[in-house]
Amino acid sequence: MIPITLITDFGSKDYYVGAVKGVILQLAPDARIIDISHEIQPQNVLHGAFVLRHIIEWFPPGSVHIAVVDPGVGGRRKMLAARYGGRTVIAPDNGLVTYCQRELALEEVVFVQNTQYFLNRVSHTFHGRDVIAPVAAHVANGVPLSQLGPPAEQLELLQLANPEAQKDGGIEGRVVYVDHFGTLVTSISANHLAELYRRKLDVHVYVDEVEVGTVMQTYSDVAVGKPVALIGSADMLEVSVNCGRADAYFEVTPATRIVLK
Amino acid sequence: MIPITLITDFGSKDYYVGAVKGVILQLAPDARIIDISHEIQPQNVLHGAFVLRHIIEWFPPGSVHIAVVDPGVGGRRKMLAARYGGRTVIAPDNGLVTYCQRELALEEVVFVQNTQYFLNRVSHTFHGRDVIAPVAAHVANGVPLSQLGPPAEQLELLQLANPEAQKDGGIEGRVVYVDHFGTLVTSISANHLAELYRRKLDVHVYVDEVEVGTVMQTYSDVAVGKPVALIGSADMLEVSVNCGRADAYFEVTPATRIVLK
Amino acid sequence: MIPITLITDFGSKDYYVGAVKGVILQLAPDARIIDISHEIQPQNVLHGAFVLRHIIEWFPPGSVHIAVVDPGVGGRRKMLAARYGGRTVIAPDNGLVTYCQRELALEEVVFVQNTQYFLNRVSHTFHGRDVIAPVAAHVANGVPLSQLGPPAEQLELLQLANPEAQKDGGIEGRVVYVDHFGTLVTSISANHLAELYRRKLDVHVYVDEVEVGTVMQTYSDVAVGKPVALIGSADMLEVSVNCGRADAYFEVTPATRIVLK
Repeated sequence: MIPITLITDFGSKDYYVGAVKGVILQLAPDARIIDISHEIQPQNVLHGAFVLRHIIEWFPPGSVHIAVVDPGVGGRRKMLAARYGGRTVIAPDNGLVTYCQRELALEEVVFVQNTQYFLNRVSHTFHGRDVIAPVAAHVANGVPLSQLGPPAEQLELLQLANPEAQKDGGIEGRVVYVDHFGTLVTSISANHLAELYRRKLDVHVYVDEVEVGTVMQTYSDVAVGKPVALIGSADMLEVSVNCGRADAYFEVTPATRIVLK
Repeated sequence: MIPITLITDFGSKDYYVGAVKGVILQLAPDARIIDISHEIQPQNVLHGAFVLRHIIEWFPPGSVHIAVVDPGVGGRRKMLAARYGGRTVIAPDNGLVTYCQRELALEEVVFVQNTQYFLNRVSHTFHGRDVIAPVAAHVANGVPLSQLGPPAEQLELLQLANPEAQKDGGIEGRVVYVDHFGTLVTSISANHLAELYRRKLDVHVYVDEVEVGTVMQTYSDVAVGKPVALIGSADMLEVSVNCGRADAYFEVTPATRIVLK
Repeated sequence: MIPITLITDFGSKDYYVGAVKGVILQLAPDARIIDISHEIQPQNVLHGAFVLRHIIEWFPPGSVHIAVVDPGVGGRRKMLAARYGGRTVIAPDNGLVTYCQRELALEEVVFVQNTQYFLNRVSHTFHGRDVIAPVAAHVANGVPLSQLGPPAEQLELLQLANPEAQKDGGIEGRVVYVDHFGTLVTSISANHLAELYRRKLDVHVYVDEVEVGTVMQTYSDVAVGKPVALIGSADMLEVSVNCGRADAYFEVTPATRIVLK
């Protein structure tokens, strides 16, 4: 029973999720279908890439991971199958594996071109059902990636903003993600912070000009309603409000800077 | 491991979905429960009917499909079990099979009346848990439809508006569904369009008075932010905006006309 | 294939649900993961407690039930494992089992402390993934509760407001829950009502000063758009509007009183 996980921007009110699941079960009746999220923001490839990267390592090797955020469906974008630590991703080649490529060990990646693994009739607007679902089922059934198409030489990846060292010895990053609880996930990693601590014992976190304080361990290290900076479960610096919403507290915009100094 | 799929208007915050799943697993421990949607608009039978019709054919024969949008629960509406291409639907008899009846081959349909397949105690407000879930589990376990109740002579079906031929040789339809991406699914099918092409080489699509253009293949056939008409994955004419929302672009109302001429 | 069910306030757009599922499948590859709800209102323990209590009894004995609404994660709150009718709950000790404790027969309860059943590395902010998921997987694999930690002497429970007898012979309760359909679930149970009927033949229901009427059986016992009081599927008195929303009809606040007299 190979797990096949689903990350999509399909939402939850349409037939799209159901059609994908039906195709998988027709071709791989023993696969185990696992919903990760169907609430990726429509056409937001970066959002999908972030979720994919942070679920894949928790699944057993052999698992198959579908990611469908596909504004270029039916056009010239390619389809890829990539393997990291024994786990296979099937996704459009539009940046969905950006974080996986940066942070996980790639074992193999091909462009999916062999139409014998697609549905007989492929629509121009729903490759999740007509291409990705059947290919994922065949991979779960044991088809090797090399059968799907040629090795991929060059992938389409998103540009990720890295934190920048500042003249005063601090570092400046950005908010890369706001989660369901309003927590701000930043571009500053636990490694960045550890490096800063080697040079500086007393590090303070600022959201633009507003000081949050030093880096704490958990939410309840501050009073209810107060902001707190900590290393979150993705090993990135996060800014939260204990039992509240940091996105509302700080009125975050894409230009918001996260400064450590 | 027979798939039992769930389409409901229960939403995602209550105990309703969980209670249905628990009852199924008590009675059919090997069934495979597959969520399709719990976000059917409350009491919107047409919405549920559309989703049901467009997922059922993708599942393997033998699968069981629960649909619960049930404003008449506890009253005089009947319960049905219907089989199309080897797939069984269990639903209130209130129009949920309207699209299935119009477009799929019906093999058998009964009114579910045999209380030995219900829970011992049936509430007046939650037949999804007390009637539909146990009946679906028993069907997955091999109980024939003929054991559930008598053949259904006459079903309650919704009135569907068909597109109308116009004096100028064109056709006029309606928006029947707006999906998660804001795409307008119309009442005009690929067959209607093919027929029109036999009489007319140059077909243009209008949303009320606004011209969308000719029928394209996919979203990226137009620039980002521009509207596009195409045959979507349900084989119906759809109007989208490339990387945008057609429902916002056109300010769609129930009276909005889709005209081909 | 032991069912492991999930009730969380994680929402549906993040990696949190997926990471929990991956950890379970790594440790208990044959477990059957069942989504109940990920839309518990953030940090609303009472909401999670209500859903947990009303799904647990429908699952087969042996099932495992994860509940994660955990504002105190990483702080001093404990973790519990409790068994009711053969079904095991794994949850923070913060009141999530309040309704289970009041209404179900407790067989065993321990504080989960044995770190050999946790992930090797436990974060300060995501015990759902690092503690609860692996413990649930081990319980599904047959680890007895007594291996997880010492018997729990005293649990943290929420204060539940009981209905109050009135001088005029009636009773007064509160709205404890508003469901997806806008139905008001009250603190008055079917038992409270039965007791009242023993003293009084003609019972009328009021939302604050507004009369709803006598207690009916189902929604369609009143006209569309009209309010109706009935015993709902949780065996509690509920106030609904037939094909409408009672929460909008009555403008419910936390102070709203439900009066039977």
